[in-house]
Parts: sequence; structure tokens; C-alpha cells
Amino acid sequence: MEVVAELSVCTYTKATTRLHSSQLSISSTHLSYLRRRAFRPITRPRDARITCSVTSDQVQAPIAVQAEGPKTKNDCYGVFCLTYDLKAEEETKAWKKTINISVSGAAGMISNHLLFKLASGEVFGPDQPIALKLLGSERSFQALEGVAMELEDSLFPLLREVKIGINPYEVFQDAEWALLIGAKPRGPGMERAGLLDINGQIFAEQGKALNAVASPNVKVIVVGNPCNTNALICLKNAPKIPAKNFHALTRLDENRAKCQLALKAGVFYDKVSNMTIWGNHSTTQVPDFLNARINGLPVKEVIKDHKWLEEEFTEKVQKRGGVLIQKWGRSSAASTAVSIADAMKSLVTPTPKGDWFSSGVYTTGNPYGIAEDLVFSMPCRSKPCLRKFKRILQGDGDYELVKDVIFDDYLLKRINKTEAELLAEKRCVAHLTGEGVAFCDLPEDTMLPGEM
Amino acid sequence: MEVVAELSVCTYTKATTRLHSSQLSISSTHLSYLRRRAFRPITRPRDARITCSVTSDQVQAPIAVQAEGPKTKNDCYGVFCLTYDLKAEEETKAWKKTINISVSGAAGMISNHLLFKLASGEVFGPDQPIALKLLGSERSFQALEGVAMELEDSLFPLLREVKIGINPYEVFQDAEWALLIGAKPRGPGMERAGLLDINGQIFAEQGKALNAVASPNVKVIVVGNPCNTNALICLKNAPKIPAKNFHALTRLDENRAKCQLALKAGVFYDKVSNMTIWGNHSTTQVPDFLNARINGLPVKEVIKDHKWLEEEFTEKVQKRGGVLIQKWGRSSAASTAVSIADAMKSLVTPTPKGDWFSSGVYTTGNPYGIAEDLVFSMPCRSKPCLRKFKRILQGDGDYELVKDVIFDDYLLKRINKTEAELLAEKRCVAHLTGEGVAFCDLPEDTMLPGEM
Repeated sequence: MEVVAELSVCTYTKATTRLHSSQLSISSTHLSYLRRRAFRPITRPRDARITCSVTSDQVQAPIAVQAEGPKTKNDCYGVFCLTYDLKAEEETKAWKKTINISVSGAAGMISNHLLFKLASGEVFGPDQPIALKLLGSERSFQALEGVAMELEDSLFPLLREVKIGINPYEVFQDAEWALLIGAKPRGPGMERAGLLDINGQIFAEQGKALNAVASPNVKVIVVGNPCNTNALICLKNAPKIPAKNFHALTRLDENRAKCQLALKAGVFYDKVSNMTIWGNHSTTQVPDFLNARINGLPVKEVIKDHKWLEEEFTEKVQKRGGVLIQKWGRSSAASTAVSIADAMKSLVTPTPKGDWFSSGVYTTGNPYGIAEDLVFSMPCRSKPCLRKFKRILQGDGDYELVKDVIFDDYLLKRINKTEAELLAEKRCVAHLTGEGVAFCDLPEDTMLPGEM
Repeated sequence: MEVVAELSVCTYTKATTRLHSSQLSISSTHLSYLRRRAFRPITRPRDARITCSVTSDQVQAPIAVQAEGPKTKNDCYGVFCLTYDLKAEEETKAWKKTINISVSGAAGMISNHLLFKLASGEVFGPDQPIALKLLGSERSFQALEGVAMELEDSLFPLLREVKIGINPYEVFQDAEWALLIGAKPRGPGMERAGLLDINGQIFAEQGKALNAVASPNVKVIVVGNPCNTNALICLKNAPKIPAKNFHALTRLDENRAKCQLALKAGVFYDKVSNMTIWGNHSTTQVPDFLNARINGLPVKEVIKDHKWLEEEFTEKVQKRGGVLIQKWGRSSAASTAVSIADAMKSLVTPTPKGDWFSSGVYTTGNPYGIAEDLVFSMPCRSKPCLRKFKRILQGDGDYELVKDVIFDDYLLKRINKTEAELLAEKRCVAHLTGEGVAFCDLPEDTMLPGEM
């Protein structure tokens, strides 16, 4: 791990060795804290409990304290409506402030993998409690209940709250991470422009909701396609949130590219580093074999078959999803969820020395000469910081663009093509970004095989 | 954590700080070691590679060394056929011997959750490499390839080998864990006796295969239903493997029971302990509220509604799977996978002081007076041991039955009923356990709702 000379103190986790009353009262808008505080078991810890409308038929009448009023159906789910024992928590002195994670498309298959990974502590570590706020639709509400029931039955010690709902203004409340997975699939005969418009409206609405109710420094990862332009729409509708906090997921492409290079070179995949995906999460994307390294050496020095690199490699990365659908009969939910967890971990842990990761991020101010005001996949490094009390090096959720990359004509030509596509997509959604009348001249279908 | 006075050194993991040549030659039957040894990169570490028939069209011609001969298609998959860099591994000095895990029903939804949990290090920890050997059927072989591809694309650093196949004698080779998830679902109009016979034949065959090729101390967890009797059939066909190594999964029932008690008592689920599921994984199972504890107190002292405990609690636990199917439209794959991981973790980590967990295990020698020679869910504690070099307390994969449990008439009556059912199931499969002619007099359908 690289220890950078100038370390800031993490602004993101706000780690505390214990929860003080003063801190509780500061976050006065945070319902769960109020609830915990209200029921903080001082004299009768064992009797402290709280009723919840979802389970009111099951729970004993409260003995010590009453809930602060009737809750809406979506405020909490089942066992997660119950008091978490704050006193015992304080005794461990290790718990940190709960991280609020909102997830859209929460009843879908990608989420079904991702939520259980998050709840098990895989992303934020074994001493970091989390709350999951799940956004579904009217149609998927029962399935959301099923997901919440399975989360109950899993007894994850780190999972302190689960909330389900269909209103983003409720579900995104106080979100510190928003994982926007849900999107409408493309219907039969629908053009990419039509898909951009339908999903763009969803992401415009979700951007407004994040702007209104999420944590002002919320990190947003857009997975629903077309994810780059959806992320652009989302950030344009959330002016209070820093534009650099919005990500479009290209990590699965990066992971697949690393695996294909490993296969070709005959090395295990952990030997491949510095893999950039440039541009759009579409068939114009550019897996960059010029800057990537194998065992620390430039790929072109290790893989002598340059024809394969130029003509087959990119296609192998892009066709992976389609081949998977043929083999497996479903899209790649598990590995997509892994790549979302990877993307989050990359932001909250220090990037290994000399390496980087790819993410679709806001281009304004980029050092590569890429057109500004787009969401474009580029090489990133997390910004390390020191956790205040424990002196542990970690990422703070923020990142910086990598400067020491090289370009050749071949790479630039392909970057220009994916840039042109993203500019065209942007013109298609001008009505959703507040930039006037949309004009759509997308030349071809560039959806990745196996994705909707 | 309880530190027991007499600690043995772990026999299970055989942890080593590094792999010595001498150790490699000892495990001479272990193909992967031979392969690694053969390609151990001494003078030209970067060039060492190995071809694999699956990917021979993709991989460069080998430079330094040749593979030791043509491999069968099922011997390894894709990137997992490639040399793992043993030299770098030695430099870290932290890796342990790879654990071989075989999984049947590997193309199904439960496995789709479980395999990614195992590969991420959730069960065996962040410094424990694993190998996954996946058993499917002719029909599911393509889906198995899809699973292997998604595992490739996930770049799990701990996942050193993936093998797929349809022959248990190949897939169970050297298995140290066998997770038997695959089973035939019940067809329309099929009686439980018919299901017992069809699945019993599968588990008899798999028991023979384990006996022939698995590690002699393999731990076997049977998930496919009817899991208790399947586990009994399996162990009867594997006389070389200790009978106590076979488990029938009742951990999901235990987890659900804990959650329902927490809901009723109005406490978070981490306050419920000492939860036993007695008997069969069927509707005759006995979730034991007499011995269970909430905040360290007997459940009956905390939940005063004893009528609910006697008349509703068990039903709530058992109907959970059925309700989930209604809500979610699928069976509970994610929480089942969590419970399998829980069951494994319980065996390889020390059981917290005073607590226990449930598993369907062999009854011979049990202290409760339950009929011998059955697989019956009972309260277990893992056996702690010290890891040789690192002095870390862990479970060694073995367990002992808990002695300090109490019984009352109500509990005994119900235990007798589930015992009678398991004795009847055993008579149904006498032809598969080598005990003569089967005689089937199962009185009623006791499959749990939501399970096949």
C-alpha cells in the first residue's frame, strides 16, 4: 500500500469510537438515531423495545417505552424495526456510525447478490454497521418484502436497518451511498434513443430526489443502462451534490478485460494491473492495452500477438455478457454484483501503489483533453486518508484522475469515437439535463450484448 | 470466545507458512500441487505457463515448459488452468494450503450465491486460498460453464482453481468439504417415498464417490432434500469417512427461529442464542424454545405468551419458505446460501462461550436417548484448536454434542414424533443403506412449504 505524504483525515466515515449523546443530537434529521436515542436503555435495558406496524401482530405490547408515533409502512421492515441495543454497542467501543446505503432495483437479481454482500460486511469491513434502504416499484413491492425477509433470516450482525419503499424521496433519505441499479429494460423494437428517454426520466427524478434528501456528499454509482448518460442526467438534476461523486459502472468491463489478458498471456489474473476502460459502457468502450501491465511490464511486451490485442481483445471483453446469457440462460448478476462491490471497495480503500481502477466519472477538468461535461470512464486512484481515532489508512470515498498515462494514435482514435457517442447521447437527453431541446442522431445500436 | 484448557493443534487445515518442496512431494496424489511443482518458476518466473484444452485457442504457445500431458475437459476451467505464481505466494509467507471444496447442484440458484461467498473468503478468511470443484449434470453443463465464467470475471484472489464436471468420482477428488446441494425436485403427484428413493440413489452414488476419492476426513453438508435421510444414505455408502463428518443442513431453520423469537420479544436478533432445531428438516422439526435464550435468559421468562410459543412459533418458522415463494416468486436461495456459510463457519471458528448451533448429525452415541444410527438435528459446539504456527484459536471442522440441555414433556413428545418419522424414512431406504428390503409406511407429507 502506498502511504502518501500528505494525508488528510477522512471526511467520509466520521468514525467514532462510540456514539455520544451530543453526536446523536447533531444528526437530528436522522430518524434511526432519534429512535435509538429515544429507546436508549439506561435503567431497564432488557425491556426496551419498540413496536412496528409491519409486525404489530407479532410483537409483545411494549413495556418500557412507546414508539414516537405511528410509522409509515415503509419506514422499517420487520425485525429491523426493533431496538438495537446501543448500550452493548458502546461496550464494544468498536462500532462506527452506521452507513446508509440506498439501492434502486432492489428486487432484481443483481441486487439480490449485492445486498447480501453488503450486509455481510464485505465492502465496509467487519466493524462497520450498515443500513439498507431498498427502492422498488409498485409492481415489485412484494418481491422487495421477500428480499427483506431473507435479510431478516440471515441474521447479519452488521445490518442494523432495512427499509423498503417505492418513493425515492423516502428511500434516499440521508443516503451516503446510492447504488442505482434499477432501469427499464429495452422493449421490442425500441431504439436506443427511446431507451435513453425512458430511463433518462427515471434518473432525472432520482437525481432530484438525491439532491433533496440524500447526504450532501453522497456517492452515487449508476448501473442501470445506458449508465454513463443516466449518470450525467442524474448529476445535472442534483446540483447540490458534487458532480465528481457520480460514477457510471465500468468495473465489470475492467474485470473482464483483466481476465482476458491473463488468459492470453497465460498468467493468473492477479498479475494484470493498470487496466483502463475508456469512455462509454457500450460497444464503443475502449479497454486500454497500451497502459495496462502484466507482471509490471507493458502488455505489448508480454503479449506479442498485437493483432489479437487490436482486433480480438476488445470484442472478447464485450461479447462476454452475450456468451454468458447463452450458457447460463440469465444475465451475469453475480459478477456484476461483485464488480459493484469492487467499485465501492476501490473508493474506500487505498489504491495499491502504481495501480489504478476504472470508473465512469465527470470529465470537467480532466487532464486528457476529453470533452468536458460528460460522464466518461477514466483511470482513477482513491484518495487515502487517516481514520481519526484508529490511525488506519483508508480511502475516503473520493478519487483523483491518474496523470501518467500514455496515448498513441490507435488509442486516441478509439477514445474519440466513444467520446463522439457520449456527446451524441448527451444531445438526445438535453431536455432532461436542462440544456434545451433534445436532438437525437445516434448512428447505431451500441448496447453491449447480454445487457438490456 | 471461550478458551478451553486442553487445546489440540488443528488437524484440519494443516496450515503452513509456506509450501516446501518436501511438503509438495508428500501430497503426491494432489494433481494441482504436482502441476504447480512442475511449473514452479525458478529461473524464468514470468515465462512459466501451462496450456489448457478449454482455452488452447486463446493462450500463447508455452515458452518455458510444457504441460504434463493432455488434460480432460473437466480438469480445470479457463483462467484457472493457468499457473498460479508460487514464488510470489512464498514471498507473502501467509498463504495456507488450498482447501478443496466440492459442490453439487453447482448450476442452481443456491450455489450461485454460495460459490461467490466462498470465493470471496467469507467462510475461510482472507488468507485462505480455495479450489472449487463444481458438479452438475449433462443438462446443466453449459450453465456450469457460465458459472465458471462469472467466477473468472470476478478476479477473486483467493480462488485458485475451478473445475467443472458431471462425474462425482472426478469432481470429489481430494475434497475436504463436500456441499451436496443438488437433488431432484419432486415431480407432480410424486409421493415422499418416491422422492426418497430417487434422491436416495443419487446420494448413495455420491457417498460411494466420496468414499473412493475424497479426503478421508472430508466434511459433508447435505442440503438436497430430504436432507437428513439423504445424509444417512450418503454416510452408509462411505464407510471410510467418519460418520460424524456428515451434516444435514438445519441452519436456515435455526436462523429463522432466532429471527421469529427476536420479533416476538422485541429485541434485535443478535440477542437470541442457544437455539436448537431437533430432528428432521421437515414439518416434524422441533425448534426448541425451552433451551433457547434471549439476552441470556430462558425464552419463556422473556416471552410470556406461552400459547404463542407452543402453537404459533414453530409454524411461523416452517411457513417462512412458503411465504417467501409467494412474495418473491422464487425459493429462498440467498438466505439458504447464507445458512450454509454459517454452518461451515460454525465448524471452523470457536463457538462463543455458552452458546451452540444446530446441525443434523449422526446420532450414535448421543447423550439424549435419541435412537441411534440416524441423522438428527441436535445442538453442537465446534471443537477449538490452535493453528500450529500462528497460534490462532479456531475450530477444526469437528464438533461435540452439547450436554447441558433440559427436556420437558412437551419437548420430548415432539422429539419422539420427528424421531419416529426419521426411523420410518430409514425403513424406506433400507435398500440404499445396505440394510435389507425397504418397507415404506410414511404417514403424511412433511415437506417444508417452499422447498422441493
